[in-house]
Amino acid sequence: MEYKITVMKNAFYAQSGGVTSVINCSAYGVISKFKKDFSSSNIYASKNGIVGLLEGELYDLNKTKKPLENLLDMPGGIFGSCRYKLPSLEDKVFYKKLFGQLEKLDIGYFFYNGGNDSADTCLKVAKAAKKFGYDLKAIAVPKTIDNDLAVTDNCPGFGSVAKYVAISAKEASLDIKSMCKTSTKVFVLEVMGRHAGWIAAAGELANSPKETFVHKILLPEVNFDEEKFLTGIEHDVSRYGYSVVVASEGLKNNNGELYASSTEKDSFGHNQLGGLAPKIASLITVKLGLKNHWSVADYLQRSARHISSLTDIDQAVAVGKAAVKLATEGKSGVMPIIKRISDSPYKWEISEGNLNEIANEEKTLPKNFISEDGFRITKAGIDYLQPLIQGESFPKFSDGVPVYEGIDLHLNKI
Amino acid sequence: MEYKITVMKNAFYAQSGGVTSVINCSAYGVISKFKKDFSSSNIYASKNGIVGLLEGELYDLNKTKKPLENLLDMPGGIFGSCRYKLPSLEDKVFYKKLFGQLEKLDIGYFFYNGGNDSADTCLKVAKAAKKFGYDLKAIAVPKTIDNDLAVTDNCPGFGSVAKYVAISAKEASLDIKSMCKTSTKVFVLEVMGRHAGWIAAAGELANSPKETFVHKILLPEVNFDEEKFLTGIEHDVSRYGYSVVVASEGLKNNNGELYASSTEKDSFGHNQLGGLAPKIASLITVKLGLKNHWSVADYLQRSARHISSLTDIDQAVAVGKAAVKLATEGKSGVMPIIKRISDSPYKWEISEGNLNEIANEEKTLPKNFISEDGFRITKAGIDYLQPLIQGESFPKFSDGVPVYEGIDLHLNKI
Repeated sequence: MEYKITVMKNAFYAQSGGVTSVINCSAYGVISKFKKDFSSSNIYASKNGIVGLLEGELYDLNKTKKPLENLLDMPGGIFGSCRYKLPSLEDKVFYKKLFGQLEKLDIGYFFYNGGNDSADTCLKVAKAAKKFGYDLKAIAVPKTIDNDLAVTDNCPGFGSVAKYVAISAKEASLDIKSMCKTSTKVFVLEVMGRHAGWIAAAGELANSPKETFVHKILLPEVNFDEEKFLTGIEHDVSRYGYSVVVASEGLKNNNGELYASSTEKDSFGHNQLGGLAPKIASLITVKLGLKNHWSVADYLQRSARHISSLTDIDQAVAVGKAAVKLATEGKSGVMPIIKRISDSPYKWEISEGNLNEIANEEKTLPKNFISEDGFRITKAGIDYLQPLIQGESFPKFSDGVPVYEGIDLHLNKI
Repeated sequence: MEYKITVMKNAFYAQSGGVTSVINCSAYGVISKFKKDFSSSNIYASKNGIVGLLEGELYDLNKTKKPLENLLDMPGGIFGSCRYKLPSLEDKVFYKKLFGQLEKLDIGYFFYNGGNDSADTCLKVAKAAKKFGYDLKAIAVPKTIDNDLAVTDNCPGFGSVAKYVAISAKEASLDIKSMCKTSTKVFVLEVMGRHAGWIAAAGELANSPKETFVHKILLPEVNFDEEKFLTGIEHDVSRYGYSVVVASEGLKNNNGELYASSTEKDSFGHNQLGGLAPKIASLITVKLGLKNHWSVADYLQRSARHISSLTDIDQAVAVGKAAVKLATEGKSGVMPIIKRISDSPYKWEISEGNLNEIANEEKTLPKNFISEDGFRITKAGIDYLQPLIQGESFPKFSDGVPVYEGIDLHLNKI
């Protein structure tokens, strides 16, 4: 005779899309909270996002011996991430396979940690579960350096990249200020941001009421007017001796096309960008004859755990924990969001967002955050941005570099 | 009746060439030691290197109220730096003007803080003083991120940029490791170094005996063999899933010409570089079809005071203080140098070098520091490099960014 007893279901966690310096903090939030609240269940982390589930490669987190706290100071996505677009719900074969895989491990909770595209993945899984009758609570955990997720006030991952940009721009500005008399007059720092200028906007945080370190910010929200920009640079150089420009990779020309375009596309069909800084630098050389330098931060900006924002870390952990709470409450197709209560003192709480309103949406900089000339950030913008970069949480160092030890991973092939 | 009493002479200090995140630490060393040992004299800091002296713009440091210790966590050159080549000693008019300016402030000590070109400037001033009969002790204070000064074991400024490169490469490597399954396979980080690969070599410090984070290092000392490099990248991708490359801007092709050349020159006639990373990235795209990302650190690497090496800071202060001691001893045309006593435990002391052996010389990576295949750094190289990045000295933060307050400057026009 066979007994069937009701057991708590197991959980699935995956990291998806471009990683951040604090995505593993959200992993810590999800895993530690799930282990605490569902002590008789297991939690599996997928290798390389949803791909690991499809290929039957998952890490068994109950076998992990090292302290989960190690995840708190580990940049990148420790379980591996992916860029992978799920097919439409019509694709029965695909979803049957997906749920088949989940069933093998008795998964009842699906936590998907990512940005817009990942919210789309999670929403599809939630809908497909309903459609195909698989009992699953699918919860998205927000993560994106781009800060462009709708509904939530801000996104874990952004505060740290914003801090990196503000610090780097301030430091580089002090460098060029020293050199400008007989050498470099303009410095261009290219940062990420395809359609939204949140990251570039953070360059404004290098400035203080007493001193200007960043003189121009180039946003995808403001079509690039070469003449106006060049006049502005000349003005900066004559007034300050030099000019520092923070430019978003997604800058557009006056026709709304990418100013520095590339033919490469990623798996979601987005253009792969890069190369804006040398283009702006070349414009300055040719049109103004001013000596300049440029930098492209690329992955350095989003992996710089050594200088992550403590506020960002706290929020990344909080959304992870809140995702487990939502699952406990039986929710699906939702995402924990950050709700701002006040700017100063900065107060926030975790609330709940519906993935229908989040997936594939992009939140750009509001108009009132952009100065009239289009090259700076207003006080309203600063009031929004500044709280997000507060606090430091330096990792442990050994031999002069951060340890970034992580946790031991035990692969489970299904 | 007039009295003539013998008074101690005053001092001149200037910063020259590309700045570092710790050049102000050397300024602290010189100024604090001079103020202590020559309490009845004054010390002036030239605005924008030697240019300030020629144009009659100097900061009167006896008027400074803020604590000199503020210089210890301030990147860039607080007094301004310059790139300015002194004429040959035949140019009587020039040197008469220069010594005339020094005489106005009763300067008997000339401290010039810079790299190879600045050592040349300081040596010329020392020689010219002798030739034209001006009583002056001219002492160079070493500074260069390039670590290419002869005679000294290492140069203040290098340890911090080395630490920045090791940390950034390790962090970016964890990022790409997360993404490589379905996205980016190769990451190229371009760092500074015209003729010497010291900075790129520091990428090796990201690695540990247990784990490889940086897979290829491209040095100016090793002519670039495209085929061998591409085969190596393919090998990395097949073995690790991805490859991280740290490339020196001064990389040369098989004919010994710059691989990424530029037509711009600085005031010393050196080619202004940059743009190597996109060139390498494009090679990988075209020849291997592997998705890649690239970053150009440029000024960010040399101004990153938030992550400066404590060892570097200590040495920067020490050479500043030692310069004053050499002046007290009546030396001229010399430079304090760092002498290594042992690798492990790392022990060093300050000794003395002759500018004749330093000026315009360039120290490249010794052969035994470069692996047989030319793409990695040997144990001998690691043993040399590792001590230089030890220790952290985080600056004070406010509103999420380092304060970098500096000191109050009082301009004296002569």
